[in-house]
Amino acid sequence: MRISLALLLAAAIAAPLAAQPAPTLPPTPPVVPPQVAALRDAALQDHYAWDITEGLTTEIGQRQAGTAAEARARDWAVAKLRAMGFANIRVEPFSMPVWVRGQESAEILAPYPQRLVVAALGNSGSTEPDGITGEVVGFNSLSELEQAPASAVRGKIVFVRHDMPANQDGSGYGYFGGPRRQGPSVASAKGAIAIVIRSIGTDHHRNPHVGTQSFVAGVRPIPAGALTVPDAEQLKRVLARGKPVTMHLTLVSQQLQDQSGNVIAEVPGRDPRLPPVLVGGHLDSWDLGTGAIDDASGVAIAAASAKRIMDAGRPLRTIRIVWFGAEEPGLFGGTAYQKAHGTEPHYVMAESDFGADRIWKLNSKLGPARKAEAQLLQEALAPLGIVPGKLDEAEGSDIGGMIDAGQPGVGLSQDGTRYFDIHHTPDDTLDKIDPEQLRQNVAAWTAMLAVLAGPIEAPTARRRR
Amino acid sequence: MRISLALLLAAAIAAPLAAQPAPTLPPTPPVVPPQVAALRDAALQDHYAWDITEGLTTEIGQRQAGTAAEARARDWAVAKLRAMGFANIRVEPFSMPVWVRGQESAEILAPYPQRLVVAALGNSGSTEPDGITGEVVGFNSLSELEQAPASAVRGKIVFVRHDMPANQDGSGYGYFGGPRRQGPSVASAKGAIAIVIRSIGTDHHRNPHVGTQSFVAGVRPIPAGALTVPDAEQLKRVLARGKPVTMHLTLVSQQLQDQSGNVIAEVPGRDPRLPPVLVGGHLDSWDLGTGAIDDASGVAIAAASAKRIMDAGRPLRTIRIVWFGAEEPGLFGGTAYQKAHGTEPHYVMAESDFGADRIWKLNSKLGPARKAEAQLLQEALAPLGIVPGKLDEAEGSDIGGMIDAGQPGVGLSQDGTRYFDIHHTPDDTLDKIDPEQLRQNVAAWTAMLAVLAGPIEAPTARRRR
Repeated sequence: MRISLALLLAAAIAAPLAAQPAPTLPPTPPVVPPQVAALRDAALQDHYAWDITEGLTTEIGQRQAGTAAEARARDWAVAKLRAMGFANIRVEPFSMPVWVRGQESAEILAPYPQRLVVAALGNSGSTEPDGITGEVVGFNSLSELEQAPASAVRGKIVFVRHDMPANQDGSGYGYFGGPRRQGPSVASAKGAIAIVIRSIGTDHHRNPHVGTQSFVAGVRPIPAGALTVPDAEQLKRVLARGKPVTMHLTLVSQQLQDQSGNVIAEVPGRDPRLPPVLVGGHLDSWDLGTGAIDDASGVAIAAASAKRIMDAGRPLRTIRIVWFGAEEPGLFGGTAYQKAHGTEPHYVMAESDFGADRIWKLNSKLGPARKAEAQLLQEALAPLGIVPGKLDEAEGSDIGGMIDAGQPGVGLSQDGTRYFDIHHTPDDTLDKIDPEQLRQNVAAWTAMLAVLAGPIEAPTARRRR
Repeated sequence: MRISLALLLAAAIAAPLAAQPAPTLPPTPPVVPPQVAALRDAALQDHYAWDITEGLTTEIGQRQAGTAAEARARDWAVAKLRAMGFANIRVEPFSMPVWVRGQESAEILAPYPQRLVVAALGNSGSTEPDGITGEVVGFNSLSELEQAPASAVRGKIVFVRHDMPANQDGSGYGYFGGPRRQGPSVASAKGAIAIVIRSIGTDHHRNPHVGTQSFVAGVRPIPAGALTVPDAEQLKRVLARGKPVTMHLTLVSQQLQDQSGNVIAEVPGRDPRLPPVLVGGHLDSWDLGTGAIDDASGVAIAAASAKRIMDAGRPLRTIRIVWFGAEEPGLFGGTAYQKAHGTEPHYVMAESDFGADRIWKLNSKLGPARKAEAQLLQEALAPLGIVPGKLDEAEGSDIGGMIDAGQPGVGLSQDGTRYFDIHHTPDDTLDKIDPEQLRQNVAAWTAMLAVLAGPIEAPTARRRR
């Protein structure tokens, strides 16, 4: 060790001290205001986000869009946001079609009788209560199904696999989610009597990953279900033995019409003429889990960071919290908000809807004129281990349409490595939330709000009275 | 690096070379015969065990004791053992009581309406099809329930938690399994209308851990179910809010009488007068998974290692493979074998029933006269990373009674760190088997058989004709 150090010192002494060209240093980065840094660092001790996540998942549990459970969640949300001291709390209702599941089962009758674990996909057609029976035809991908002649599919139960991997950025869900999104329509168009897919997930538990799909116009809705990953692998092995495989499938469901709504609350800004900063997540969940990572933690992160700003004083700009309703079945809440407010100016929009694991990357799309602001944001978040990402890109499910339409956006990308282990399964429960990583999220969002809604003016002694 | 080496050399040179007392070295360990080492090392490439595990879990799936599925598994076993070339294949049948589950659900009605995931424990009492409703009273442990006055329990649905940890040696299942084994009887004796326990498991998935329990004589069988760990944690949080909690519980089941059987096959030894070496596992499984770790891999490891010996030639002693029936509901197969053969001399007994993760410890109980043999076994297995354990202890579920009664035994302890994540759940599926660790198991068992049933005489050219 000593020798190595001596060698290093010798090398340093030997380094030429002669004239060098004047260094071309990178431009000095923007200085993060002490107020932003202090709010960010204090948020690493946050408890508001856990409190909301724990409360919503415990006291409401699952809250499928358009159901009585989601209505209870709205009541809970209004009470919670009021108790936290937010202003202008309101529910903006909208009506929507509601699909709900009933009795479900899948069973291989031959050649190897056994039950499989299945759950219907959103908007699945319904079987009669005693189910249907058919021969299974298997495909290794959506492409294989698409390329198959109708004669290979007609009158059969289609099974589609895929090879979705786990990725930090969640990529794969788009392409490999095809069997869920397009598979049912393609199978129906080719005359299949039903379809079961390998769950769009990256785990190996006997919990199906549900999710929505919509039959394209003119195609008959057929029963469409997701097998768990172990069950899909089992069916693949059974099919690989080359004997005809008969399956009995029961997927009872019904279509209703009901109401949902967006829950909105605000931290009023000092200058009410300025466009608001919108932060949000979605209040509804799928029906099998308690929607902890999808998306109790998201609404919690948005509200907790706004609350922390409010605790510190009054921001320059109004912070608008939107807990969107009915995201899961097709972005109904986002669409309703866009219809009502999408053309009003917003200073920025950000949505948390990818779990609660650590934020690892910051994208933004504030426009060329606000590059300095975007760079300040990068500097403010970097101490949390957040990599500066793109300046012309932002993300969000409910806000996606509005960002596409030109609203400024910020995307705080969460680590999605384990997200699709849990996503849309019965396993989406509170224990999947890592409190430490949740707090890192709140710190990032708080810093983001401190930059974009700030500066924050602490209440004076007079105001306090 | 050089300097360090020089220092070491200097230290070595400086070491005193003066007269020392004669060293007391430990006794020379027994030399592992080259045949044993060669068979052991070749078994690290084994495919027989995977083939059996994959086949049984795929072509039969779950095989609950006493049901038609277990009968199919016996037929499969006979065909498989015959195809592998074993001799003296037979089924030794026995009759037994059979408990089977029906419709099951649990729902919190108040204060926070939501469904919980539940499965009945073996021998649970049955509710009517429309279930029962009651107030929930929670206990943090079996001890707390035992200490509670009957007045706190009477007419209520008891909920019992526990704090079972994951341990490499599986310890904890005894003590922390109390809520499952004794909880239902204690709750019933105090007048409870039903009991739900936190699953006896170490995971956080929405899959219940079932398992057997028996009501003590004179106690009314009440409905008894296991909530998944996340659901039990949820119920704990709900109860912690201090409001009365009402639950609706449906656990329909029935008691039948049916047959099971032990499937037996042999590798005949060169000297048929010598007592056999018994290796086994259990053929039945619980009903929710496909019984991959419990215990397809166990029967596979036993048979694969015997097959490898048979491939090499004829062992001195007969190897008897026993695939026990009906282990899960109460060791019926082991008891039947003990009744039929328990007093016959066996050279040794060994059972694989703790998954397929690597063997980390070797215990044996061969008796003081066979200490050298036990030590040779230790030496033969140590190169697989297997720690020499006790010489007066062996383990096994079906063989446990016979070892207690004096039969010699060997215990090859598997790493149980993740065993109780999966044990008795729907998640006990093939994907939980690590092929590499499975092969290490086969190598250990093959070496054990080579030592205890050997030496093996290779077939001569003449015999081959």
